[in-house]
Amino acid sequence: MKTIEAIKTRRSINFFDSTKSITKEEAGHLVELASLSPSSFNLQPWEVIAVLDPSRKKILRGCAFNQPKVEEASVTFIIIANPGAVEQNIDTILAKQVEAGTLKKEHVESTKKMPFKMYQEKESLTRKIFAVKNASLFAMTLMLAAKGLGLESHPMDGFDSDRVKKEFNIPEEMIVPMIVAVGYASPELKLQSRAYRRPVSEVLRFDSF
Amino acid sequence: MKTIEAIKTRRSINFFDSTKSITKEEAGHLVELASLSPSSFNLQPWEVIAVLDPSRKKILRGCAFNQPKVEEASVTFIIIANPGAVEQNIDTILAKQVEAGTLKKEHVESTKKMPFKMYQEKESLTRKIFAVKNASLFAMTLMLAAKGLGLESHPMDGFDSDRVKKEFNIPEEMIVPMIVAVGYASPELKLQSRAYRRPVSEVLRFDSF
Repeated sequence: MKTIEAIKTRRSINFFDSTKSITKEEAGHLVELASLSPSSFNLQPWEVIAVLDPSRKKILRGCAFNQPKVEEASVTFIIIANPGAVEQNIDTILAKQVEAGTLKKEHVESTKKMPFKMYQEKESLTRKIFAVKNASLFAMTLMLAAKGLGLESHPMDGFDSDRVKKEFNIPEEMIVPMIVAVGYASPELKLQSRAYRRPVSEVLRFDSF
Repeated sequence: MKTIEAIKTRRSINFFDSTKSITKEEAGHLVELASLSPSSFNLQPWEVIAVLDPSRKKILRGCAFNQPKVEEASVTFIIIANPGAVEQNIDTILAKQVEAGTLKKEHVESTKKMPFKMYQEKESLTRKIFAVKNASLFAMTLMLAAKGLGLESHPMDGFDSDRVKKEFNIPEEMIVPMIVAVGYASPELKLQSRAYRRPVSEVLRFDSF
């Protein structure tokens, strides 16, 4: 499917075909594609849980105001934004740059200071925004990749975040910006007309607000 | 271009062809496509400034640690996350649902309470995260739409946010999660190999963290 067509035809699907499943490999392929999203300083502050097991999906549904799609979708991804990704990933990122010849070894120490300055300390608002924005880029690529592969999706933020963290063993300091149901549309599904979008003339300004 | 190919070949381009421009209509088309992104409660908490004018791009470059790509790209978009979008857009969103027959008129008042409960008060962390995650979904779709239309892009969060707000007349309460340069690759550009990505085995867990 062409990119523009995928963007135009991607819809948030409420009714999935609960008889269809996807494999761990297919879930992994979606994550691999989503990982090609850009991120601040290439720090990739995202982690994902693919909830495939029926009993685990039932628990997740319970955390998400009992929305049936959480359970009916082939997989529901828990998208996790990790404010601690600077500390967690910076050394690897820089080592890989040295390896690729895009960063000189003698510049590693000074380069390493930059994201700590830009994204401040772990508990700051800046750091939380850093994590959430990048995890959301990742989530959008995942949804468009799904569409490109013939799958449908539905992002949700209607869930009890503390309960999701507890049930799925997610460390307290992580942020769960959304969960994303992915699967096949129910054969009975009749798509409603696309929900209203604010007109470009209202969203877009030129050169200044 | 196919969706999966766009995802695989989208790269953050450092060197744009500064002799090439894009029109206001083309910038508007990208925003129209990006607006098809899903958003929490369909509240679309995003606003965009397309900086096309050379003198304005120079100013934006000055706010962004003097990165040449800000000025060399055909357009640089300032992506704005609006925490006030609940108050700003809820009445229109619900009226459009009633108009489309997807919401009963008598349910408008009770439905209207939901996003205020979910996304809390305007100044809360929850509300800021709400705005940033959705504006980032928008930004990712914009970048993939650009790729699908033969354009390149580069998202940046290396800029002085307060200065951008001041220079571009953006209200204080808005958040600027990123700016996105869009244009054509410089003919001299030789792409480096793609930057390291964390392996799927590290990013993805099944059923629990």
